[in-house]
Amino acid sequence: MISYHTHGGDVYRHQNVTDFSANCNPFGTPESVKQAVARAMEQVCHYPDVKCERLRDAISHYEGVPAEQIICGNGAADLIFALVLALKPKKALLPAPTFAEYEQALATVECGIQRYVLEESRGFSVGREFLDHITEDLDMVFLCNPNNPTGVLMEQAFLREVLLRCQECGCILLLDECFVDFVEHPEAHTMKPLLEQNNSLFLLKAFTKRYAMAGVRLGYALCGNRELLENMQMVTQPWNVSILAQEAGIAALSEKEYVEHSMAVIHRERTYLLEGLGRLGYETFASSANYIFFKGPKDLQKSCLEKGILIRDCSNYYGLSKGYYRIAVRLREENDKLLRVLGEIPAAGSKYR
Amino acid sequence: MISYHTHGGDVYRHQNVTDFSANCNPFGTPESVKQAVARAMEQVCHYPDVKCERLRDAISHYEGVPAEQIICGNGAADLIFALVLALKPKKALLPAPTFAEYEQALATVECGIQRYVLEESRGFSVGREFLDHITEDLDMVFLCNPNNPTGVLMEQAFLREVLLRCQECGCILLLDECFVDFVEHPEAHTMKPLLEQNNSLFLLKAFTKRYAMAGVRLGYALCGNRELLENMQMVTQPWNVSILAQEAGIAALSEKEYVEHSMAVIHRERTYLLEGLGRLGYETFASSANYIFFKGPKDLQKSCLEKGILIRDCSNYYGLSKGYYRIAVRLREENDKLLRVLGEIPAAGSKYR
Repeated sequence: MISYHTHGGDVYRHQNVTDFSANCNPFGTPESVKQAVARAMEQVCHYPDVKCERLRDAISHYEGVPAEQIICGNGAADLIFALVLALKPKKALLPAPTFAEYEQALATVECGIQRYVLEESRGFSVGREFLDHITEDLDMVFLCNPNNPTGVLMEQAFLREVLLRCQECGCILLLDECFVDFVEHPEAHTMKPLLEQNNSLFLLKAFTKRYAMAGVRLGYALCGNRELLENMQMVTQPWNVSILAQEAGIAALSEKEYVEHSMAVIHRERTYLLEGLGRLGYETFASSANYIFFKGPKDLQKSCLEKGILIRDCSNYYGLSKGYYRIAVRLREENDKLLRVLGEIPAAGSKYR
Repeated sequence: MISYHTHGGDVYRHQNVTDFSANCNPFGTPESVKQAVARAMEQVCHYPDVKCERLRDAISHYEGVPAEQIICGNGAADLIFALVLALKPKKALLPAPTFAEYEQALATVECGIQRYVLEESRGFSVGREFLDHITEDLDMVFLCNPNNPTGVLMEQAFLREVLLRCQECGCILLLDECFVDFVEHPEAHTMKPLLEQNNSLFLLKAFTKRYAMAGVRLGYALCGNRELLENMQMVTQPWNVSILAQEAGIAALSEKEYVEHSMAVIHRERTYLLEGLGRLGYETFASSANYIFFKGPKDLQKSCLEKGILIRDCSNYYGLSKGYYRIAVRLREENDKLLRVLGEIPAAGSKYR
């Protein structure tokens, strides 16, 4: 039997559960996206546009970034693997814990990994000494802002220093902003304004979470380094983004009201969940994303599953152990169900202290 | 501007044309597949099943091959890239001309290429001396049966010898059977029966052509070497096959009548086109696939485009030059239009001799 990576969102091996393990927009996929995909089925006898021309134009308009600085992929994960394969780094620096696919991708080219371990005592934040770890022997640096699974946001001033240091050392900074849209005032936190002047910056973004379309697979990246984007095309099959994903993306980008409303609700519900978890005695960490990272008893995932709720057991993240969990911020009714279940678990809030 | 590979089927840069350049089923995508995708849009707030469990079960049933010998990908091309990345071959043997993505994939790991040039004087067939080229310094051998773009079919007895030789030399044979379904009596030509006993065989198959769903992106491979399949999973993102592709595939595999009817029509129309081309003085090559390879004047693609028909100019295939073309076998009305256009081109059939 083939072995597979363990991630959140496996609703196939856990049926009839409320899924708090994947971090998608709780409002579900917009109707316009569903309709666009149904319409696009009339075109699928053709190959997809290898240039993703209309989609890249739509992203360009949405992001205010020239189309030639945009590359699309079969989900953001596809772009991580393509970037790594294009660069073939020998040594990369990444924090721990963070999104597991960075390391998975680096393993494909046998890249050496240098880990910067985030400390719980410092709230899993990236400290200024991270800058000292960016040295000339590095080819790549990975950062996720806000970080997955912790939800911790880095300051823009600090990220500018990181980027400058990467540029000095001739290494590429993959900055994963897949969750930056869920931060309050994302425009104050994205590093997009630095794309034009900096060849070392590779900004990763996804449709998955913002529009609840993880099953469609569509991600994109913004990068001012055209040679790098060209090299990525060379190591990827030409038709990696399906017609369905291209049309879904174009439709999704028009959903301004849906996104604004979702964000307002998610911010409110995040506070609600944090307060609720606190009341129950769970230790939470400050989250700027649409998910919450917290500590609980060692068998909490199992206990929740028995009550019809799937949460993300984070023990398989490098740098974490049993007893760390991540939950998505969902709608009030679901959040209440989660809090009720967590409250019913015997001595939940004291057992692990 | 990012540069892209040139392939057939670019209906985005050639609008309002009848597309003979891509080799898809001319009956278009089955209605059941369209409906399955529309229904699946209700599920795309979730991530895809990383194990493609239901799809692999459906393929297992269809192919008569155990599910654990099946791997799915974002189109057959995705699997070519994943296989190459998993194996990281140092030296590979492939015929020329053949499908360009083999070489594109090999370039991602800087693999040395040894070409076996197919000779026009021998009808572009693979000769027995191919066996002598399979030596112990090889890591991979690529063959496409029937070959793309020539449509030439290899005998099963010969392929068995090739496979045996690959096994002796410890190299993997990627045998691309994406077009074998269009051969008359495909069951007599597939190497599927040898999967169980041979760890060197990697059989590539696609949904693209059989069900006219190139825009959905779905391919699969059959392989008895479980370690190899596991290694492929390790070099690929876990969610490479979208929910839409998985559901489209499951629906498509039930379309037995559609496939039978399509094949009967394609076989009849292939003969019709071959005779028509012959009457017009074009030199054709024996095709066993759903496309026809032929010679024509150097500017034939341009001349056809002016008359609303897109054909595949094969001059960018290694081993070919200007004056070679490939056309898909389509429905009678379209084929008549193609023959009419080809007949109108001045001195088409004599100019290039």
